[in-house]
Amino acid sequence: MSSPDQARAYASTHAKTFESELIDLLKIPSISAESNHAEDVRRAANWLADQLRSIGAEHVSVMDTPRHPVVYADWLHAGPVARTVLIYGHYDVQPASMADNWTSDPFEPVIQDNVLYARGASDDKGQLFIHLKVLESYLKATGGVPVNIKFLLEGEEEIGSPNLTQFLKDHPDLLSADVCVISDSGSYDIDQPAIVTSVRGLAYMEVWVYGPSIDLHSGGYGGIVHNPALALTQILSQMHDENNHIRVPGFYDSVVPLNDEERARLAETDLNETKLLSETGIPATWGEHGFTLRERLGARPTLEINGLYSGWTGEGSKTVLPAKAMAKVSCRLVADQQPEAIYELVKAYVAQITPPTVRSEVRLLNRGEPALIDSQSAEMQAAFRAYAQGWGREPVFLREGGSIPIVVDIQRLLHMPVIMMGYGLNSDGAHGPDEHYNLSMFHRGIQTAICFLDEVSRMQD
Amino acid sequence: MSSPDQARAYASTHAKTFESELIDLLKIPSISAESNHAEDVRRAANWLADQLRSIGAEHVSVMDTPRHPVVYADWLHAGPVARTVLIYGHYDVQPASMADNWTSDPFEPVIQDNVLYARGASDDKGQLFIHLKVLESYLKATGGVPVNIKFLLEGEEEIGSPNLTQFLKDHPDLLSADVCVISDSGSYDIDQPAIVTSVRGLAYMEVWVYGPSIDLHSGGYGGIVHNPALALTQILSQMHDENNHIRVPGFYDSVVPLNDEERARLAETDLNETKLLSETGIPATWGEHGFTLRERLGARPTLEINGLYSGWTGEGSKTVLPAKAMAKVSCRLVADQQPEAIYELVKAYVAQITPPTVRSEVRLLNRGEPALIDSQSAEMQAAFRAYAQGWGREPVFLREGGSIPIVVDIQRLLHMPVIMMGYGLNSDGAHGPDEHYNLSMFHRGIQTAICFLDEVSRMQD
Repeated sequence: MSSPDQARAYASTHAKTFESELIDLLKIPSISAESNHAEDVRRAANWLADQLRSIGAEHVSVMDTPRHPVVYADWLHAGPVARTVLIYGHYDVQPASMADNWTSDPFEPVIQDNVLYARGASDDKGQLFIHLKVLESYLKATGGVPVNIKFLLEGEEEIGSPNLTQFLKDHPDLLSADVCVISDSGSYDIDQPAIVTSVRGLAYMEVWVYGPSIDLHSGGYGGIVHNPALALTQILSQMHDENNHIRVPGFYDSVVPLNDEERARLAETDLNETKLLSETGIPATWGEHGFTLRERLGARPTLEINGLYSGWTGEGSKTVLPAKAMAKVSCRLVADQQPEAIYELVKAYVAQITPPTVRSEVRLLNRGEPALIDSQSAEMQAAFRAYAQGWGREPVFLREGGSIPIVVDIQRLLHMPVIMMGYGLNSDGAHGPDEHYNLSMFHRGIQTAICFLDEVSRMQD
Repeated sequence: MSSPDQARAYASTHAKTFESELIDLLKIPSISAESNHAEDVRRAANWLADQLRSIGAEHVSVMDTPRHPVVYADWLHAGPVARTVLIYGHYDVQPASMADNWTSDPFEPVIQDNVLYARGASDDKGQLFIHLKVLESYLKATGGVPVNIKFLLEGEEEIGSPNLTQFLKDHPDLLSADVCVISDSGSYDIDQPAIVTSVRGLAYMEVWVYGPSIDLHSGGYGGIVHNPALALTQILSQMHDENNHIRVPGFYDSVVPLNDEERARLAETDLNETKLLSETGIPATWGEHGFTLRERLGARPTLEINGLYSGWTGEGSKTVLPAKAMAKVSCRLVADQQPEAIYELVKAYVAQITPPTVRSEVRLLNRGEPALIDSQSAEMQAAFRAYAQGWGREPVFLREGGSIPIVVDIQRLLHMPVIMMGYGLNSDGAHGPDEHYNLSMFHRGIQTAICFLDEVSRMQD
């Protein structure tokens, strides 16, 4: 057997062990957004460091940042002319609790019908773990890997990677490589793999409206004081026009327009409306007039409300006229929109439309740049062949709706191409309740990632 | 000394004792809206029953209803020709917790500069307790009262008195009287007492918007799924037109129009705009164009948002596309608007403006009818004189913004006039944090209420 075939056979034999190790990792509630989980985030980092040591990785270190640590490790014995692959993944997860309607505890993983239910199962612990198991499979089955490997495992992706840019700037030599591979995205569907060629950026904000200095009795003041919750809805309702175009002046100025060729290519991966309705339970699709579903998702920016809070939200009725109201508002951005510029535009627009009867404030919480990736590069072709062999089917190129802000940073600061080989599904419930991961995706991912390292080692210069 | 003078002297002598007893009552968190406080509500009822017994009331009983009990007591020894006064008050309170920005624990009363800080201090435990101390003062100082007295103390006012109507229907003889007095409203200001001649009704609703069956990732679905939080703001922003008139079709159809005479009288008690701004901290007043502040507050209906909830409201950023969004929406009503009719109108309007991309639902949580009171009756004149003597100043007649739904029920079911002698202030922070009660209002209230019983006993038929 050739080297990748031996590694693939090892991976098949050890499938159950791999699953049980992943479950151990998923039990750690490494929620980066909640400060009371900071120790859990570190626990997950230490768990990964121990795993990496046990499977033969070297220079394993848990490196501090101002908030949550980065885990670094490598295996660099492929020889002086061999290529080097940098693996990026994140071991932090979105918040989750039973109160958000999970069927079972988000940190007590359950397998049912070959589907693994847990926060982070798909985003991104499950997909990250694929690459650890690829290294293990090569080393245990063949004693070596055809390329050098470096791991860069982050603990702050779900809070916008506030410290990773500086980390990349501080460690250019440590992280130098020929190509970076990221598995943190979705296939087209369970049978059709996909390589992502664009990700959206993010500008995540809080919009606050302030009225009276304290909560008032709605009987004593209702009708003479502008209710901040009402004012907030009046402001937010002016964000979209009747065609669902965003009304913030200048919002679309930096959007790279779609040409006919690109639109034709996007039509090949358009979303199936019937499937979308049944998958989500919505009564009808929605979005910007004049664009297909795929274009709305992958090539057009959005403005979403991620949270609303004001006044009394508990049981029963409390006749309060609230002192303030808050919305979490985020824009998904496309090339070449810049998050800070979009934040400034939204801030100016909110200020402009805030009536004189209340005060408002917009804060930027989190940001990430959009990225476009060349689908013709040698590395992309290597990935294409890896899917054909390891997965058994050629991938489609996909524009993705989600955000992986680090893509642009790696491209720019580390000067290497980024290949996004995602092994998740959009229906995995990432960020929502009952997040899950189809274990066949996990195992096919390992097979494909083994082939990818082999293909990279045999790329023509 | 005449009988009321002796009672007044007793009350002055025992002022500190009365305050310390009130503090004991305020320590009981009798929050009727929260089911985990049901035992505390009952504890407050039992505390009042014990108090009533100790001051000489008879037939004291804690009477069960389907939820929180009613406390009944009487003293009926004024003689066969004497008039009977029914005292209504409520011992339940609005929800309160330190998380709502209280300076000190809402159920650990604090006195500072003669102001008592605690949930319920003004609304309504402090005002209710006035009447217990009136009975005590008469009985201890003179051995009798010039009228018969009945107490009807409710534990469900803050949740809309769901069981009181039936209680009145079930006990017409027990509650029969010549006049009902309620102290659960505000003076015009601290030096100017007021008798309330109208209260607004209430239709308290929840508006729900439903989108996807579970929370989604805003990257994976943002732009193709109508965000329920966004849809909710779009629906709520259509509740008012640019003049702050409510756009719900038919909403104003039953409003009794103001005539010129009424508007002239209301102008006498119009609100001071400068004082309102400094009292509330708002940058400018707001409201329905074409009406004065007093008219907006006392003679015009409103539609308020009392609470907003959707998606992620915690620390940091969670890129969720929420499955649902909720608003607590309440309308303050004026005569002759009917709460159920208004609910049906709002429900129909929300259904009409809900886009086909989401689903919506409107539920009625709580209701109360508005009331108008005759300011020329003999009982009203008795109250007028009681203020002149007991308080030291003649009252103004006031249209109030708040709701006391029971007023209409007492008028209709028990066939007696209701006189609203409020000893609170609109600035007491009822329903908000740091609710407080100026103890000079408490003591002047006792003096006035003592005089009122004397005036009622001397009314001409």
